[in-house]
Amino acid sequence: MTAPVLDVVAIGNALVDVIAQADEAFLVTENLDKGSMQLIDGARAVDLYSKMGPGIEASGGSAANTVAGMASLGRKCGFIGQVADDQLGGVFTHDIRSIGVTFTTAPMTGNEPTGRCLILVTPDGQRTMNTSLGVANYLLETAIDRALIESAAVLYLEGYLWDLPESRASMKAAIGVAKAAGRKVAFTLSDAFCIARHRADFKALIANREIDILFCNEAEILSLVEGDDFDAAIATVAPQVPMLVVTRSEQGATAVTGGVVTHVPAAQIAHVVDTTGAGDLFAAGFLAGQAEGRSVHGSLTMGAIGAAEVISHYGPRPETDLKALVAAQLG
Amino acid sequence: MTAPVLDVVAIGNALVDVIAQADEAFLVTENLDKGSMQLIDGARAVDLYSKMGPGIEASGGSAANTVAGMASLGRKCGFIGQVADDQLGGVFTHDIRSIGVTFTTAPMTGNEPTGRCLILVTPDGQRTMNTSLGVANYLLETAIDRALIESAAVLYLEGYLWDLPESRASMKAAIGVAKAAGRKVAFTLSDAFCIARHRADFKALIANREIDILFCNEAEILSLVEGDDFDAAIATVAPQVPMLVVTRSEQGATAVTGGVVTHVPAAQIAHVVDTTGAGDLFAAGFLAGQAEGRSVHGSLTMGAIGAAEVISHYGPRPETDLKALVAAQLG
Repeated sequence: MTAPVLDVVAIGNALVDVIAQADEAFLVTENLDKGSMQLIDGARAVDLYSKMGPGIEASGGSAANTVAGMASLGRKCGFIGQVADDQLGGVFTHDIRSIGVTFTTAPMTGNEPTGRCLILVTPDGQRTMNTSLGVANYLLETAIDRALIESAAVLYLEGYLWDLPESRASMKAAIGVAKAAGRKVAFTLSDAFCIARHRADFKALIANREIDILFCNEAEILSLVEGDDFDAAIATVAPQVPMLVVTRSEQGATAVTGGVVTHVPAAQIAHVVDTTGAGDLFAAGFLAGQAEGRSVHGSLTMGAIGAAEVISHYGPRPETDLKALVAAQLG
Repeated sequence: MTAPVLDVVAIGNALVDVIAQADEAFLVTENLDKGSMQLIDGARAVDLYSKMGPGIEASGGSAANTVAGMASLGRKCGFIGQVADDQLGGVFTHDIRSIGVTFTTAPMTGNEPTGRCLILVTPDGQRTMNTSLGVANYLLETAIDRALIESAAVLYLEGYLWDLPESRASMKAAIGVAKAAGRKVAFTLSDAFCIARHRADFKALIANREIDILFCNEAEILSLVEGDDFDAAIATVAPQVPMLVVTRSEQGATAVTGGVVTHVPAAQIAHVVDTTGAGDLFAAGFLAGQAEGRSVHGSLTMGAIGAAEVISHYGPRPETDLKALVAAQLG
């Protein structure tokens, strides 16, 4: 088995975010669950977009944001995801390649557009996401680049991909490739509602020891175990994964590995502008820390630095050189 | 003559900005004049984009930014500009309509895309703009909505439109419509290099008393008169326009009307992130102030508030409710 040349290859929905400010009343009128991600069809996307305020467009996608964050931390990464041969697909492709991430999934031609996520940011900085997947619906197994997966130390997958039958099958194939090559599999549970849709499948993945590093937030781990006791949820899940990483917003983050619990506080920031990408950038910092050989505590701290940067401005990817930020704070 | 129902109708390049960070060395390597706007063709746009870092996309265009700012200040405005029938054209159209600006120019179909401006922001917050006009090249006289122009108290034009023969002819027709309806004509000189290309035409417009309100910055007025003495430039230009407004970055702004000089300092901000849109939002604040019946000093102060907001974040349009900002500062 050859040594990996990449730190992480991520597979996820290739999306362009459309970020607009909205007030709480708008969420109520539009029947949107604040803080969640919901899938919408093309017609609803047109309808909701027509009601939203002016937006900024920025490449997004949960796992794609994570490798973008790792690239900003100086790590070598790849990404697999489906865009269309259109302007927003060009934007996504440019942005991820321009930061040195290997991205070679061929764009799909036809009538379906590149996927987009309509993100409404309320004055408290919370984001509510409405995803129209477009061609991201069709991440076929032919797009799963075996050589790319084999070349990376860690395969990183987002739970959102389970929503689509094609993608789900592709993900299981990708896990098989990674495992056969002796690579680790990292997984983010993505969203409490997503878990509600796929709980049995996610639990089976974990119980079958297919996941080496599991990322989630407090609401997600509670959704997974269908409980309301955080410590009990940790006690249930931690023994089933070599590394469990749970973020808790302003309460910081906790990792459990080999029965050892490590906690770090949240990094302080002056003003939360937009929480989009917080979990994605936490995962980026943690995985980069692990790739650098840092301790669990150091890796969690890097995660907290990444999350703090991304919530201090609109947009789901860093605007600051995270490597310099980490060097200034951690050395 | 009926009373105007809109405060301002602006005509300008309908552009989507692609904003990326760049260091000084990149500007040198790419032979870009820092702080300026240069026109580039489609091939150069592809080349430059391929070398740029990750971007955010946001609706831009100088005059369009100005009416967006005025909308944020509660004023009623219209916009005329040419987009293509593509995704970025859809973004531009959505963004300007979503803030209540009347925008009915039909999108152009064909092979040319919506115009875009590749903006490189250096660490000092200065922006260097590279515009690939696409269909904005073809703002035909048929797009000049006479009734819309007649319905507004002020017609606002950007000097950038003089770069294109079709647009130049359309602008002159628009001025004729406004004048015939008894409306005021406001004009921004846009950019020192733009003035260098069209100095004789701009000087003739001013000398012929076609401009009622002239906006420029210090470099632009010096370029117009081909001098290096600011006070001498003011003394030359001011007698030829009923209202002259000159912005001077951190030195504030000056207006001259009827021989009376009024000056306001720049609004203080903690950190200049991206100067894109500073002049556009200054004009927005000033014109909104005039529409509200404020004094010249009050209008200049509103301009300074608009400019300060837009340079405190990436992107050329306000992210904060400017009306609330003005109410908090001016009452």
